[in-house]
This record gives sequence, structure tokens and C-alpha cells, in this order.
Amino acid sequence: MDQRIAEHAEVLVDWSARVEEGDDVVVRVDEGAHDLAVAVAEKLGERGANYLATYVSDEVESAFVRSHDGDFDPNPDFELSMLENADVVLSLRAKRNTAAKGAVPGENRAAYKKSRTEIKARTMDTDWVSTMHPTRAHAQNAGMGYGEYKDFVYDAILRDWESLADEMANMKDLIDEGSEVRLVKEETDLTMSIEERTAVNSAASVAYDSHNLPSGEVFTAPEATEGEVYFDVPMTHDGARIRDVHLTFEEGEVVDWSAEVGERALEDILTTDEGAKRLGELGIGMNRGIDRFTDSILFDEKMGDTVHLAVGRAYSSCLPEGQQGNQSAVHVDMITDMSEDSRMEIDGEVVQRDGTFRWEEGFEE
Amino acid sequence: MDQRIAEHAEVLVDWSARVEEGDDVVVRVDEGAHDLAVAVAEKLGERGANYLATYVSDEVESAFVRSHDGDFDPNPDFELSMLENADVVLSLRAKRNTAAKGAVPGENRAAYKKSRTEIKARTMDTDWVSTMHPTRAHAQNAGMGYGEYKDFVYDAILRDWESLADEMANMKDLIDEGSEVRLVKEETDLTMSIEERTAVNSAASVAYDSHNLPSGEVFTAPEATEGEVYFDVPMTHDGARIRDVHLTFEEGEVVDWSAEVGERALEDILTTDEGAKRLGELGIGMNRGIDRFTDSILFDEKMGDTVHLAVGRAYSSCLPEGQQGNQSAVHVDMITDMSEDSRMEIDGEVVQRDGTFRWEEGFEE
Repeated sequence: MDQRIAEHAEVLVDWSARVEEGDDVVVRVDEGAHDLAVAVAEKLGERGANYLATYVSDEVESAFVRSHDGDFDPNPDFELSMLENADVVLSLRAKRNTAAKGAVPGENRAAYKKSRTEIKARTMDTDWVSTMHPTRAHAQNAGMGYGEYKDFVYDAILRDWESLADEMANMKDLIDEGSEVRLVKEETDLTMSIEERTAVNSAASVAYDSHNLPSGEVFTAPEATEGEVYFDVPMTHDGARIRDVHLTFEEGEVVDWSAEVGERALEDILTTDEGAKRLGELGIGMNRGIDRFTDSILFDEKMGDTVHLAVGRAYSSCLPEGQQGNQSAVHVDMITDMSEDSRMEIDGEVVQRDGTFRWEEGFEE
Repeated sequence: MDQRIAEHAEVLVDWSARVEEGDDVVVRVDEGAHDLAVAVAEKLGERGANYLATYVSDEVESAFVRSHDGDFDPNPDFELSMLENADVVLSLRAKRNTAAKGAVPGENRAAYKKSRTEIKARTMDTDWVSTMHPTRAHAQNAGMGYGEYKDFVYDAILRDWESLADEMANMKDLIDEGSEVRLVKEETDLTMSIEERTAVNSAASVAYDSHNLPSGEVFTAPEATEGEVYFDVPMTHDGARIRDVHLTFEEGEVVDWSAEVGERALEDILTTDEGAKRLGELGIGMNRGIDRFTDSILFDEKMGDTVHLAVGRAYSSCLPEGQQGNQSAVHVDMITDMSEDSRMEIDGEVVQRDGTFRWEEGFEE
């Protein structure tokens, strides 16, 4: 077995999920995640935890959802009680075909998802972590060979997370103390208020309230956005390709938009509801193990030298206790490359120029 | 997909488990059972049941059990509560390597098994059914090609179970009303008392208190065994090959034994405890879809033209209410071929001769 699989399992169990003796750990095993499941089980045994593996298959789920009349029992007790008694849920994502759910009618899919709201909430109440085991299907989706893709995934996952968390703490401090962020690059000059907002140091560990492995971003919930921004990183949203997006903000709201590709899909997103035209997130990618875009938001938005903005729902962890951020049914991330001819300022001070942070070697004021 | 997989799923869900709308169904998916899991999920969707798939992997379990210090938490709540809230448990057995557990120390394996006693009992409280999806590993174990093995498995599973159940009812009636069974063949003349014992019509359905698919046997719990018996069908018990067993009974107890191969393993079984030298089961194979021995007790003991006897524990379902049958830590089935030069009598009346039952064409009194 690839030694990196064992290392991945160790990062997941120890750094990310902080599994302790006696923890009840649900391991959600995707169709292609067998080898990682073996490595995770070995680590859980070493830690003296208990495991229960569930089988997560798009093909099995699709067969069930498609043949059902659509009147799904809400949150069946057997799954709910399992989760209520679980301490940790580890999702090992590893599809064998990223298009497997294609044949399921959207109506049934939505009804099934809705019937599982409480199950989702109980999962979120645990120390859950979602990660990815590289498969040929994901490599294909990224347009890469399998070996090359595995290198890509493990470079992103097998970081020195402790020192990355320390570095990200610098950025969190700047945001926590700052009032305004400004992004400047080609066809972009955008200001956002971050007054009274806190940042999340997303260091791929439940200890940092961060639930994805890999992670490596610092994010907050901005408001009062003004100006224009250009997103040059292509994305796929609900199956639709969207590329070269321009947004213009006035008084916090998108007043003009365009896209080279997928303008209709972009319009659908922005007109979903009131909050869909306002920003819910400003995220700063700081994982330098990710060196290219692979059309997967799990990786793309964490890439060093990128900034992403999401229209829609804000995370309450970025707001002062008791306050509510932007509300919306959507939360759609869009990414802009900050590696060249660009700068990010906080309260007029340049904190990143051409992809280099102010505490890094080579930074030019 | 092989159409027989969909037919298998239908027999399993409808005939065997009697799944109804709203049932909470745990589907235990072995490493190699993906295709059957898809077909079962489709049927469960059609019936309006709920499903939760668990992943059963000898490799995952071995990694966990081997790395654990052996002090396993007994019956963790998250798994117990899932089973307590389940109506049905379907086990889809499909190994990719029948030797996968080989490297786990027996001590750890036994401790893990013991820690799950209550989990096993809760599973048994549901309408559970265990079946097998053919894999190359099982074909290899049977000494057969994969295509040939699939034919073998589906011939055993895709029966007209309703009419087989009717036919088996004849045998059950004979045993329920009879007092003594006698088996006569080469090196065999054995009598057993079945006075006050009832037979189970094991028709592969929870409606018949029968939990294996395939099934197709009628069994009871005999006592006061006298005489000698020759088991000419080879078997593997706990990894040990045992062949050509001769047992001699006096006053219900084995007083003399021999085996051409595996005599030591046979002795280990018979000397386990007091009850290990007494019979716990007399079973009559009646599934004519099984036409050869494959060294798998799930199939071998159900084969038409065979009779099996188990030393050790008796099933309480064969005894009058409140009475206890033979007690033992073991229950080991041994099979004898009744297809030629043989007869089975009940109270002196021949009920099967040379493999033909008295209600079948060609039967000779």
C-alpha cells in the first residue's frame, strides 16, 4: 500500500478529528475509499476508539432514490440514533464515477435531501471531518493522470499543519483587528467592511472549527462591498460551467454582472433570493501544497495565491455572538488568482502583493 | 447488469425478509457485494422502506482488531442503537479474499467477537437474512470458474420458494408426528429419537423462521442417538480440513470416532465440552438447485439428497416450549450423501430411498 495512505489516515485521525480512546467513530466509506478505510481502521484501533463503517455509494443511493415514490420518511430513527451516539464522523470521499447521480430526477433528489435535514444536522454536531481519497474518476475530473493526481492530492493533504496553522494565525489577527479589506488586480478594485467580524483559521482540524482535509484558508464574512471584481478561475456549479465572471457592487449588493461562459447559470445564482446578491464570505487561500486548479472547490479555494468570495449565506462563526450575517439559500464560491500584478490591503496596509504575504521572504511593501 | 442480480434482490427483499413500507433496513455490504447492494436498494426504494448501508470488510476489520490493544469497548451505543431501531438486517456476503482475516491473532479476534455479543443478539432480534453474492474469491474456494460458480449460486437461490416450502412441509409433518428416525447406508445404521420434537421448515424466509438465502432444509433436534454413521462429504472447520468421519453413538453420546483427514481437529470439536459429543441437529437437505459440494456449509447442507447431523448446541425452535435441548459451545455440521444405496425411515416407514422422497415420482417402498 502507498505509504501516503497511512500518513493520510494518521493526519485525519490525530490532527483533524482528534480521536480519543473510547470515541464512537462513524467512518463513511465511499465506493472507492477501501484502502483509506483500512488505514483509518488501523489508526482507530491504535487509539482504542470504536468504529462503524457505513457504505456511501452514489450508485446505491441513486437506485434507491430513483425507484422510491418520493415520499421519503423523514430522518429514520436507526440512522438518527446512530449519529446521536457518535462522537466523530469521518467522510472518506472517493467516487468511482463523478456523474453517477445524473439519471436521478432532480425532484426525487431534492425530496430525499430534504428528508435528511435532521440527519445532516446531527452529523454536524459531531467532530466531523470530510476528506478525499484519490480515485481515477477524480483524476479524470481534474484532467490529470492517476499517478500525477495522487501526488497532487497528497501534496495538499500531507502538510505540516501545525506550522501552517501558526502562519494562518497571522492572517486571522490582521482580519480580526482590521476594518476594511481592499482587493486590487486586473479589472478588480473591491473594498469590503470587516468591522467587528472575526476570521476562522481553517487549519483542517476540529480544534480550529475546520472540518475539511485538506484545508488551509482564513475566512470571514464581509459586508458593505463596493467596486468591481474579476474571477478568472473557472468553476462548475450544479453541473454548469461558469467562467470569467465580472461583478460590480454598490452598497453591498451586486448591481451588474457578466460571465464569458455560463452567464445564465450565474444569473440563476444571483437571483435566487435577496441575500444571493450580497457577499457571505471572503476567503484567503494559504495552502501552498495546492499548485493548480482542478475544478474541485475542496482544493481550488484553499490554493495559496488565491482569494475567493462567496455570494449568499455567511457563517455565524465569523460574526459577533448573537448577530446574524447575510442570509440566503445559496453559498457559491468564486475564485480569483492573486499570484501576479495584484495586492490585498487591510486598512490601507498591503498584506499580500503578487501572492507573497507581508511576513514572507520577498515581500515588497 | 446480470438480470439474476435483480431477481436475487427481489427474492431477498420480498420472499426472505418480507420488507414492508416504512421498514428501517440495515444493508450490510461486503467488499464484493456492490452490484447486489444497488439491486437491493432499488427494491427497497420500490417498497418505500428506508435503508442504511454498512460496509463489511474483512480487511478493514482485521486492521482495526489487529492494531487494538484487545480491550474492546463492549457493544458501543452507536451501533447498538442503530440495530435496536432497525426492523430488518440484510447481510450481503461477498468476500474478495476468503483468507483475509488470517493475520489477526486469534486472541484479539476472540476478544472482539466477545465484545459484540449484544450487537449480535440485537441483530438476531430483527428480521435478519444472510445471503451471498458470488465473487471470484468464493468461486476459487469452491474450485470453480467464475461464470460456472455464478450459475451454481443462482440455481440455488432463484428457486420457486413457495412450492419448495410446500414440499418441505411434508417432511416437517412426518418429523412432527414421528418418534424415531433411522438412517441406513454404507457403514451407517443410526437411530435417533424425535419424540416431542418439532421440525423447522427452513424455506429461506423470516415467515418460516429461516434466515439464510439459499436455504431448503428441514431440521430438528434429535436425542438418544444409537449406532454408527459415516460422513462422506469433506468439510473445513475453523480452517482445518476434515474428511471421511466415522462416529459411533451409545446412549446418545459419541463413544468412538475416526477421520481419514483432520482427526485431531475432530477430536478438538468432540472434546470441547459435555454437549459436544451429543447431537444438536438432524437436517434434511431439500434444495435440488444445489447439485454439488463447494465446501461452504451455507450451500452444502441444503443440497437435496443429503442429510447432516450437527454435534453440539440444539436450536430451541425444535423443542417443546420451556424445554432445553443439548447445550454446548459448539455446533458443527457434518454431511452424508444419501443419493445412493441409502434410506431414511421414520417409525419404520421408508420416507426417502436413494435420494427420492416418498411423495416423489420413482420412489420405491
